[in-house]
Amino acid sequence: MVEDEKKKIVLDKSDFSTWYNDVVEVAGLSDKRYPVKGMNVWTPYGWKVMQAVDRILRREFDDTEHDEVQFPLLIPKTEFQKEADHIKGFDAEVYWVTHGGLNELDVPMLLRPTSETAMYPMFSLWIRSHNDLPLKTYQIVNTFRYETKMTRSFIRVREIHFFEAHTCHETFEDAEGQIREDCSIMDRLAKELCIPYLLVKRPDWDKFAGAVYTIGVDTIMPSKKTLQLGSIHQYRENFSRPYDITYEGADGEHHHVHQTTYGMSERLIGAIIGVHGDDKGIILPPKIAPIQFMIIPILAKGKVEMVTEAAKELEREIKEMGFRVKLDLRDVRPGSKHYDWEIKGVPIRVEIGPRDIENNTLVFKRRDLSTKAFIERKDLKEEAQKALDEVEKEMLSRVENIMEDGVKEVDSVYDGKDLLGTGWDGIIKTNWCGEMECAREMETQMDKTFLGYPLKDAVSGETEKKDGNCMNCGKPCDTVVMLSKSY
Amino acid sequence: MVEDEKKKIVLDKSDFSTWYNDVVEVAGLSDKRYPVKGMNVWTPYGWKVMQAVDRILRREFDDTEHDEVQFPLLIPKTEFQKEADHIKGFDAEVYWVTHGGLNELDVPMLLRPTSETAMYPMFSLWIRSHNDLPLKTYQIVNTFRYETKMTRSFIRVREIHFFEAHTCHETFEDAEGQIREDCSIMDRLAKELCIPYLLVKRPDWDKFAGAVYTIGVDTIMPSKKTLQLGSIHQYRENFSRPYDITYEGADGEHHHVHQTTYGMSERLIGAIIGVHGDDKGIILPPKIAPIQFMIIPILAKGKVEMVTEAAKELEREIKEMGFRVKLDLRDVRPGSKHYDWEIKGVPIRVEIGPRDIENNTLVFKRRDLSTKAFIERKDLKEEAQKALDEVEKEMLSRVENIMEDGVKEVDSVYDGKDLLGTGWDGIIKTNWCGEMECAREMETQMDKTFLGYPLKDAVSGETEKKDGNCMNCGKPCDTVVMLSKSY
Repeated sequence: MVEDEKKKIVLDKSDFSTWYNDVVEVAGLSDKRYPVKGMNVWTPYGWKVMQAVDRILRREFDDTEHDEVQFPLLIPKTEFQKEADHIKGFDAEVYWVTHGGLNELDVPMLLRPTSETAMYPMFSLWIRSHNDLPLKTYQIVNTFRYETKMTRSFIRVREIHFFEAHTCHETFEDAEGQIREDCSIMDRLAKELCIPYLLVKRPDWDKFAGAVYTIGVDTIMPSKKTLQLGSIHQYRENFSRPYDITYEGADGEHHHVHQTTYGMSERLIGAIIGVHGDDKGIILPPKIAPIQFMIIPILAKGKVEMVTEAAKELEREIKEMGFRVKLDLRDVRPGSKHYDWEIKGVPIRVEIGPRDIENNTLVFKRRDLSTKAFIERKDLKEEAQKALDEVEKEMLSRVENIMEDGVKEVDSVYDGKDLLGTGWDGIIKTNWCGEMECAREMETQMDKTFLGYPLKDAVSGETEKKDGNCMNCGKPCDTVVMLSKSY
Repeated sequence: MVEDEKKKIVLDKSDFSTWYNDVVEVAGLSDKRYPVKGMNVWTPYGWKVMQAVDRILRREFDDTEHDEVQFPLLIPKTEFQKEADHIKGFDAEVYWVTHGGLNELDVPMLLRPTSETAMYPMFSLWIRSHNDLPLKTYQIVNTFRYETKMTRSFIRVREIHFFEAHTCHETFEDAEGQIREDCSIMDRLAKELCIPYLLVKRPDWDKFAGAVYTIGVDTIMPSKKTLQLGSIHQYRENFSRPYDITYEGADGEHHHVHQTTYGMSERLIGAIIGVHGDDKGIILPPKIAPIQFMIIPILAKGKVEMVTEAAKELEREIKEMGFRVKLDLRDVRPGSKHYDWEIKGVPIRVEIGPRDIENNTLVFKRRDLSTKAFIERKDLKEEAQKALDEVEKEMLSRVENIMEDGVKEVDSVYDGKDLLGTGWDGIIKTNWCGEMECAREMETQMDKTFLGYPLKDAVSGETEKKDGNCMNCGKPCDTVVMLSKSY
């Protein structure tokens, strides 16, 4: 536990809920004092982290031939109502704009909770023939949900920083291919962000409003509760029929397109904070850290000018190497500087003092392991890259441990109870016969809910199968399911 | 005039209003068929152009020590009402959110038309001492105005892609320094975007709601009407008093901060389209063109494969040089390809055919002048850069002509009428004694309105002074003003 001197806040991750709120505040990621609950201010540091994540998303989706677009925020009620399940799913959750200036609007408009109903009337105009397909688009926008549950920065907010991809295809199989592409993008993204993730096909009763099926992307938080980071939906023709999105096929006939969507949000940041943070603050994955190297000069008496100059030169050098680097020249004692940048999760602290200058060395202090290493100045470039790679490797190995410890296979309710008796409270992987009665009993006995059917891997799109017996009734079956507590 | 074969639209800039709407559509910049008037869809090409502009803005404001932030969209009515002039200015122009889900909200919220009233309650929390100053922030967000006038893509819309910088300073003089910095940023931006611009201090009766004074950034459209692209405001303590934004000075006393703002919007794109477009389509400045080079292979019979391979290799090469390049391999005739990319304003078309491959040459066709040049393949890198530089130079020289022809000095109402009699209908620059009666008469006689006091240049922040006589009453005075028709 470390006490931040200025803010007098003790960070103690063993009380996760308090720790999370505190660390978001003292790391300067978000300010929740804005006068509307759940609508938070992105402060400069937090916004830089989000933009770094967005840059990865843009690269991934541009590289897979998606076009970035930007649709209007406001959706007329008349358009929103076209898909019946969809509106039922969102009825109680949307904000309504009813007045423009002093006039009541003829048709009320809602703030998009997601953009199906904004985009699809336009897709219907854009798509004419099979030559227009596939249509692959995405946008990064603000969306809104009237949350009634307790809000929490990045995890449950009312104005959401939202990524959404929407695609249209000729056939169901083409759309399935898109979903496989989406899963493999998630895999690459999770590696760069150093977060654990599961791809789990939701049970039918938990799919998205309007979807044929939903694949949830879930992370595992320190409590071993799951947090949904994103979701991938197969719509088949569920939206293209009411929104009349058709194409003329090579056969000269008109067909409805098959659609998919992929949604993600700022929860990605919530996951990074929750998974990697400690009592010293957050730890940022090197690929998205706004500052990868923070230089702290040791300004010994009589050597201030010399060290300052050397530190500035070092900053220039590291910057030229293509890394993100800053130099802390504030007039506060080094201890304060260490605390501040540890809280903000800067992967590598670089110390330079008179002796280092004399010996042509530097000190690298790693945020993740708190280890120090002496670096020969002449090896700076290789050592800098190596240091970032090692931090990433360590963070990924922690992710692996979380995955291993977070999910356990269980054969029966009896075994499950045994396991829970040890105090472990993670994700249970087991077999299920498909009977609702068994599902309910499994949920009750384990005090968890059905997360769904885990995918075999991130490329095949297939759910896991394994010969076994239903956890509850013992009937032989090969359907694998997961149960968890979730946020 | 060129007829786009697919859309059967004849572009004729002599009918500017129709031409503008058509060119926005056929160039694929924006789709205004979204079912809410004035809320348009950013299609992929238009959004790429906007993002290129945003990149320049981010670079300029990051380089001048501004921090990017992101504030909530919704502003509670109670916060909005704190500055009396401000709310009066916006009362009839904002959208109101009155319901969350099925519940009426206790306090209605409005969609930000601009973010003073969202940001300043937070600034009041963020600023404690003079060490926190200056506070320099900006954000790029969607803002909303309930426009009742006719809407037009990029020029008058209801959901606006908005840039806004907000700064706080210790003293009025510091804030004045910020405004000088803002003006010089505008100068650099206008050069990269190749747009004409004027910095004109607005008359008191035309300043922004809540401002002490406003500097308008105006462009000159082909009609010689002015279009406001942005505005820079000096607030002094007008907002810091009602929002209680104070700092403890070195003197131990609490003082209100002095504030400035700088707003710009997608009108920057409207200006580029309007100023440079022609009967073949738009022309994009090389610095923001999403595609700087479009390669069109000449696929002569029997040589298709060879030329395709060479064109692909050429694309790789140009890309590696750091330029934005695409290769058009569609199965349509070259003439169609030429039309399509001319409409979209790609600065340089690169033609490569069997003979070019044999001779190690290429053809560069410029969008601005329609001239062709043979390029030696070995000089590709230098020639590519030179070609872009030359397009930019030509565009800037056109801008210079527009500025020269757009503004004319006039000594008296008599001279003014003479000038208008020639059919010229641009911006009149003249002297004014300061009497409202003279202002009204000048406006009536010239059939134009006061644009305001032009700044001497983009660095001094001073308005132009020149000994002369009031245009209307002939009284000696040194105040220079401009009158124009404006959009």
